[in-house]
Amino acid sequence: MDPIAYVNGAFVPLSEAKVSVLDRGFLFADGIYEVAAVLDGKLVDSASHLARLERSVGEIGLALPESLSRIEELQKELVARNELDQGMVYLQVTRGADKGRDFPFPKGDVKPTLVMFVTAKNIVDAPSAKTGIGVITVPDIRWARRDIKSVALLAQVLAKQAAAVAGAGEAWMVEDGHVTEGGSSSAFILTQDDVIVTRPNSNAILPGCTRKAVVKLAEERQLKIEERLFTVAEALAAKEAFITSASSFVQPVVTIDGKPVGDGKVGSMATRLREIYVDFARSTAV
Amino acid sequence: MDPIAYVNGAFVPLSEAKVSVLDRGFLFADGIYEVAAVLDGKLVDSASHLARLERSVGEIGLALPESLSRIEELQKELVARNELDQGMVYLQVTRGADKGRDFPFPKGDVKPTLVMFVTAKNIVDAPSAKTGIGVITVPDIRWARRDIKSVALLAQVLAKQAAAVAGAGEAWMVEDGHVTEGGSSSAFILTQDDVIVTRPNSNAILPGCTRKAVVKLAEERQLKIEERLFTVAEALAAKEAFITSASSFVQPVVTIDGKPVGDGKVGSMATRLREIYVDFARSTAV
Repeated sequence: MDPIAYVNGAFVPLSEAKVSVLDRGFLFADGIYEVAAVLDGKLVDSASHLARLERSVGEIGLALPESLSRIEELQKELVARNELDQGMVYLQVTRGADKGRDFPFPKGDVKPTLVMFVTAKNIVDAPSAKTGIGVITVPDIRWARRDIKSVALLAQVLAKQAAAVAGAGEAWMVEDGHVTEGGSSSAFILTQDDVIVTRPNSNAILPGCTRKAVVKLAEERQLKIEERLFTVAEALAAKEAFITSASSFVQPVVTIDGKPVGDGKVGSMATRLREIYVDFARSTAV
Repeated sequence: MDPIAYVNGAFVPLSEAKVSVLDRGFLFADGIYEVAAVLDGKLVDSASHLARLERSVGEIGLALPESLSRIEELQKELVARNELDQGMVYLQVTRGADKGRDFPFPKGDVKPTLVMFVTAKNIVDAPSAKTGIGVITVPDIRWARRDIKSVALLAQVLAKQAAAVAGAGEAWMVEDGHVTEGGSSSAFILTQDDVIVTRPNSNAILPGCTRKAVVKLAEERQLKIEERLFTVAEALAAKEAFITSASSFVQPVVTIDGKPVGDGKVGSMATRLREIYVDFARSTAV
């Protein structure tokens, strides 16, 4: 079955879902995206993703073409039309297509482009949650505003391609000796003292929605959390490492650049946080 | 008249020129572009642009869907079909549209996307060549591989939008106290000792085709050239400043952040280099 996509007000077969070659998302990466998980046909942590969407577009002076509540309605309709039980809804908004190509924002009445499509994926029962994944490390060569969830993702593409070539599941980007984050995930370690460590939000990383939820859920359970920078050496010497993302929830990391993290096995904290997150996701999905 | 564009083997009206929402240029800024000037219906400095295209795609592991000579043929045909006398040919190649959205390169047989369109513009008689332009300075927040002419241009969009809001014609990006380059141009100054200064090529800037030609043309005329870093203060204290780009050739810069460069008037060196470049462009266009 050809999936159904949403493009600027219309639901169309994904194979026919197109944008102008003048779309500023295509020409300039002048756009923002969000990926929300779907469980039981419902949107996971939707309010958090929509709040981040609103923040991202605000940071680049882009007006959303629809209200946040309307966007959520459209996401729900798209999930329903695709009969999607589990997977992700991808959403991208760009500064639209002007009559030509010019760097500054369009002067006339150019409506932003809104595109959505879904991907089916068994996130809950992903085998990698049981086996863990390997990560490689790469220099973080991205721009200075990584807090904006823009589609200018070429650095992440190259990082994740390097990971794929190495047989790894993610690339951890490293800057000034410290891990910033994964190519499309947040990075965590669990120290030998059972302290969960993740980098604090700043311009250097994306404020992960799943990261935020996991931190809150851990705090609610009186688990020790420190938001601070950490090095690759610290991660290798840690008891556990793991990543979080909307499309993978919590994933244990068992090797870094081929070297084992702790005993090289999937840790109990990552497994526990994953269970806690799945419960949260199911019980709060809308 | 609706201009004619080229999309993946077909010449189509620009208003109907579209790409899939799954195109990796749209989703990931996973693409490379080139802009070549057209004078008298001919391509300016074409070999230089094609060589840079080949280098850029090589740096991101992207295979061109057509040979360089075929691409040049297509550009010429597009210019002819649009009866374009003067302006630019825009060319973009992306890693194509896979069946879904996944960061690593597509595994299957996904053909790269090739898009071209033209823009009419009177480059030679642009009024700004006589009046000069103002530039503003902004922090250079781009990624670490600015030598790759990728479509991940959001930082440049924001820089040039800030310039437009300030009534300036370009934004000079500044890093560690030194000018890197303009949002879509190379930056030059002429010192009080009549030395033309421009930043040397490196990962920090795009290797400008017009920059390269101007440096060579100046050297051939025994003009003094130094490729080295310079500061905004040096530029303000200079005799002249100017920018080069494929779509504007050589443009005098008369103010920086509202302060005059030298005597605040269009300088004779910028004007001379512009004339020399126009002669070169006309006489070597293909």
